[in-house]
Amino acid sequence: MSIKVGIIGSTGYAGEFLVRILSKHPEVEITYLSSAHSAGKKLSNVLPALAGIADYPLQKEDIERISQSCECVFIAKKSVESMKYAPMLLKQGIKVIDIGGEFRLKDARQYEKWYGNAHTSPELLERSVYGLCELNREKIKKAELVANPGCYSTASILSLYPFVQTMKQSIASINISASSGVTGAGRTISSTEKNLFVNCFNDHSAYSVGTHKHTPEIEQEISFPVTFVPQLASMDRGILTVVYINIKTGSGPLGDPIEVLQEQYADEDFIRIFNTIDEVTASNVRGTNFCDISAVYVERTSTVAVVSAIDNLIKGASGQAVQNMNIMYGLDEETVLWGGCF
Amino acid sequence: MSIKVGIIGSTGYAGEFLVRILSKHPEVEITYLSSAHSAGKKLSNVLPALAGIADYPLQKEDIERISQSCECVFIAKKSVESMKYAPMLLKQGIKVIDIGGEFRLKDARQYEKWYGNAHTSPELLERSVYGLCELNREKIKKAELVANPGCYSTASILSLYPFVQTMKQSIASINISASSGVTGAGRTISSTEKNLFVNCFNDHSAYSVGTHKHTPEIEQEISFPVTFVPQLASMDRGILTVVYINIKTGSGPLGDPIEVLQEQYADEDFIRIFNTIDEVTASNVRGTNFCDISAVYVERTSTVAVVSAIDNLIKGASGQAVQNMNIMYGLDEETVLWGGCF
Amino acid sequence: MSIKVGIIGSTGYAGEFLVRILSKHPEVEITYLSSAHSAGKKLSNVLPALAGIADYPLQKEDIERISQSCECVFIAKKSVESMKYAPMLLKQGIKVIDIGGEFRLKDARQYEKWYGNAHTSPELLERSVYGLCELNREKIKKAELVANPGCYSTASILSLYPFVQTMKQSIASINISASSGVTGAGRTISSTEKNLFVNCFNDHSAYSVGTHKHTPEIEQEISFPVTFVPQLASMDRGILTVVYINIKTGSGPLGDPIEVLQEQYADEDFIRIFNTIDEVTASNVRGTNFCDISAVYVERTSTVAVVSAIDNLIKGASGQAVQNMNIMYGLDEETVLWGGCF
Amino acid sequence: MSIKVGIIGSTGYAGEFLVRILSKHPEVEITYLSSAHSAGKKLSNVLPALAGIADYPLQKEDIERISQSCECVFIAKKSVESMKYAPMLLKQGIKVIDIGGEFRLKDARQYEKWYGNAHTSPELLERSVYGLCELNREKIKKAELVANPGCYSTASILSLYPFVQTMKQSIASINISASSGVTGAGRTISSTEKNLFVNCFNDHSAYSVGTHKHTPEIEQEISFPVTFVPQLASMDRGILTVVYINIKTGSGPLGDPIEVLQEQYADEDFIRIFNTIDEVTASNVRGTNFCDISAVYVERTSTVAVVSAIDNLIKGASGQAVQNMNIMYGLDEETVLWGGCF
Repeated sequence: MSIKVGIIGSTGYAGEFLVRILSKHPEVEITYLSSAHSAGKKLSNVLPALAGIADYPLQKEDIERISQSCECVFIAKKSVESMKYAPMLLKQGIKVIDIGGEFRLKDARQYEKWYGNAHTSPELLERSVYGLCELNREKIKKAELVANPGCYSTASILSLYPFVQTMKQSIASINISASSGVTGAGRTISSTEKNLFVNCFNDHSAYSVGTHKHTPEIEQEISFPVTFVPQLASMDRGILTVVYINIKTGSGPLGDPIEVLQEQYADEDFIRIFNTIDEVTASNVRGTNFCDISAVYVERTSTVAVVSAIDNLIKGASGQAVQNMNIMYGLDEETVLWGGCF
Repeated sequence: MSIKVGIIGSTGYAGEFLVRILSKHPEVEITYLSSAHSAGKKLSNVLPALAGIADYPLQKEDIERISQSCECVFIAKKSVESMKYAPMLLKQGIKVIDIGGEFRLKDARQYEKWYGNAHTSPELLERSVYGLCELNREKIKKAELVANPGCYSTASILSLYPFVQTMKQSIASINISASSGVTGAGRTISSTEKNLFVNCFNDHSAYSVGTHKHTPEIEQEISFPVTFVPQLASMDRGILTVVYINIKTGSGPLGDPIEVLQEQYADEDFIRIFNTIDEVTASNVRGTNFCDISAVYVERTSTVAVVSAIDNLIKGASGQAVQNMNIMYGLDEETVLWGGCF
Repeated sequence: MSIKVGIIGSTGYAGEFLVRILSKHPEVEITYLSSAHSAGKKLSNVLPALAGIADYPLQKEDIERISQSCECVFIAKKSVESMKYAPMLLKQGIKVIDIGGEFRLKDARQYEKWYGNAHTSPELLERSVYGLCELNREKIKKAELVANPGCYSTASILSLYPFVQTMKQSIASINISASSGVTGAGRTISSTEKNLFVNCFNDHSAYSVGTHKHTPEIEQEISFPVTFVPQLASMDRGILTVVYINIKTGSGPLGDPIEVLQEQYADEDFIRIFNTIDEVTASNVRGTNFCDISAVYVERTSTVAVVSAIDNLIKGASGQAVQNMNIMYGLDEETVLWGGCF
Repeated sequence: MSIKVGIIGSTGYAGEFLVRILSKHPEVEITYLSSAHSAGKKLSNVLPALAGIADYPLQKEDIERISQSCECVFIAKKSVESMKYAPMLLKQGIKVIDIGGEFRLKDARQYEKWYGNAHTSPELLERSVYGLCELNREKIKKAELVANPGCYSTASILSLYPFVQTMKQSIASINISASSGVTGAGRTISSTEKNLFVNCFNDHSAYSVGTHKHTPEIEQEISFPVTFVPQLASMDRGILTVVYINIKTGSGPLGDPIEVLQEQYADEDFIRIFNTIDEVTASNVRGTNFCDISAVYVERTSTVAVVSAIDNLIKGASGQAVQNMNIMYGLDEETVLWGGCF
């Protein structure tokens, strides 16, 4: 098999890592890389690190031409344009994996509330599958449109899901603290100076407290409200998530949270459960599609603390997108992803 | 006035910054610096950065000699030895400010439970004053023995206290997430390889979840249980604390948390309240004795999120210790500390 | 005495640190801070770190009004506009200290060659004094217009001068390697993405090899050609300079280079000579006006290697500018600068 | 084919990355991993990042048992013990690739001079081949004992060799400045505190000026003396080398140095020549076996500046070692190494 694949938005971080991963994929042929800003150049003109190893030409963002050369397209733009591109591609029978947030929420009103603009293709929300592979594998197999989860959401939901499944009635409240590397903000120079070296280096700060766009997709998948505080850490890549599950008083004794995790994820290749929280670090998953998780139950306060780590560029974006593609095409889910390292 | 001051443990981080601060203090004369490892050398032999600016001789850890040359002694060792030194010094009429954890807890059993060893001077626990200046100023004025608060505790208590004061009955649970720079672990090479550059750089990890020694002093000062998750960040200095105060359902409308903070700290020079959480960052307080705080109320989840930042070496250790000394000696509390920068 | 001081360009790095330093200066009153982008705001609106400690209003870049309120003006803009502002200020009898490069070169043709634009006030080049305090102190005392040296130039010239003085005839060639923190590039978002966190962090690269603007001022001051290779290091502040002085074969035995340095700088308070190169580090001078230097003679290759460190924001910019002001006004040269720490 | 491979010293950086690379090698079976400190454990007990992906048992450092299970052994210890192990292994007909420095110098007296101890197997120095693949490929094909080059040496020699080849008579002197990530110092806690996070982070310093052990192997391979100044940068991995080739006056016009590089390395897959120095960065080669190089001729000073970058753990250690193995066994030289990323 050789799946003809295209990427819209090839020079952002998600696009770059899709190219890095897909160029090694034994069942994939990259047939179209588009770039709004650098069409006409070679990829290595923009990203010299790729010279000699993945040096494709960059083409215009022309949906018609993409449709002619691809059977599966990754949309790797953080932009409302994917709401326009996705239906055009789907109409041509092309499978779409959207890395952005436009097709993650089932409820168009929730989308409008959190994203601040109306959804222009609300009819697709029902068709789209939330591509958190470990939870929605069966639906992904049959999907035409997969909404790749947000990076924070991936780590948070994978931490929370086993506990929500087994003891939802006992949960009083959930708080999430997540520290992310700066690539989480994308490659573009934003209008603020926030992502300049001097403004992130040797620093730590919280932002978008209670208002971050990943909040509603976490709540949608676990059906429980969460207080989510994202933080910018002095790292380039990686997310470390600390989840606090506060148990209602009088809920009775709680079992070993490690066992809860192990049972849920016994058959998952990309989830590693560790016995001690010290073994879960952002650097241990760097370049891999793993989500590492550990947990402890703090009896004194009746709180389960779950700690998880992912690479925001891999399991939090491009890696999981390729994992989704593998599932959609009936390939071994680990193809090209096993072991990393990207 | 010229207060004769000594420091036990001058070459650790707390000791180094005590020297940096006190050598500029207009009312202080440094008369004795002890070092267990480097007695006989000059300070700049150990710390070349201090060459020419604070180049004192290092002497033996000899309590008798220290007693003869000082009227106020800072114990800047993380060690059980302070339990032995403090009573010896107090007996000679010397005021003692202990940077370590030995005199912070009022209950010797709590000390034993969290620190893993028996307290050998439990009779001093009642006499010692917990030196969080903003809360205990009146007691500090009359204290002979001040227990300087832990770095995490300083940021956590200052964040929590105003809310516990005004709405304790409505609080269901408290979770704390705190990210610290690596100086928090002290200068010594520990038996593990944890503090090596390669093991912290570009990384983020949690440790001592539910078991960190600063937990009981936070709970002691706010009289409420907390789930505390300390984290090691890729910074050299600074702590950013995120505190989640989960409100009981049906507690009625909550006022503006910024106003709660402003009212509590209206007269405090070293606490800055910011209107937006983005303005609170670890780097903004670097080298200063400030604690910067902001907060938001997340109505959807009935949770107050308080974010605070301190420099763990200054407000979290040496700066607050000098602030305590200023209070004990009736000096202007801001002396030498105002504006930073250390 | 109270010198009325103004700063043009108060929110860049040089401007920020001039404010930090001058606001503590016992003989200075800051009377005018201009900002092209933020006039009308308070300084802490732009730089929250300064809230409560140096919170001046920001005003328009109006040379007439500046002239009325100041007797000494620092121009802290990297811009050709200083060529226009300086003569206007001088005409009003105001002393000018220019942090930019416009008045450093004596030869207007050299300026045009290296800076790429014509000099619009060439008549001032003769009047201006190159403000490297340790070499030009006597001239600075009488100067009306001081050109504050470049950061790289300061470290390079201070390393080279003693050897050029004592053995110029024996020198075959000089190579300079200098690694700088990212603040060296200024605070503004440039048109390239070069200064984004992800593009500097955990990286090291060379730039402007053989073409950097600081090259001609180094050559001007030591009267010897140099090959200068600036490098961007994964630091926020600090420069470490390695200078290679290749000696002609047959030049006879060379003395101890440490002695050469010590003799030259025996009376200098802001230059510290260390016996071993390991003691010279970028972090040791952070926040100070020191230039730390050491050297070894590699006999095998007849090369003297001189290593020096400065903080590019202090001795490499604002600190030296204030040192120049102290000299110009007959103040103790160390006023406000001694010991750091900024 | 399936080459049975063993590694002595599997838990240091070189060992870890040998495992990471060789576990993906299609023609290799890892049959013995020894660890002096952790025999009896699994590799993931020491390095949790390898859990599930390369989780071999760690065995004793028993040369007899290693000889029975392997046909090719990598010695990944920085230690004099390799002088004892290598002859034992060679006697059993086992091919040896030594990552340390013991077999790099042809002259035992040079070894003693630079390493400070006598060579105990000087008879092997003639047999060993200096494993810089691009220069010594033919000899490596037939070698039984390969001395893998030092990390600094690899970058320096690859930068210098083309110029020494084409214009040695015109060279007056050579200076080398190389900035390295902290993994260059190995994983072990040394007796000094130099490699602690706080002592390297946000810093830059020079060390071993004129005395570093990699100096003689550079001089041996290019037959020209060099002044080498290694520097510790605030990075975890990567080396950026700046080489200054000072040309004798009157040597006549020099051609384009880019062409000199391109001609020398036209057929080399792991060397990338860039037209501008800005494209050569430590981060661009991270995780790869590439050496990226660019150069400019500074006509004003008659100096060629060559800038190169490698990943010290890959092309500077484990990657080049596997490249050597590929050559020794007649495999495609790029096997497992092409594209990275480790």
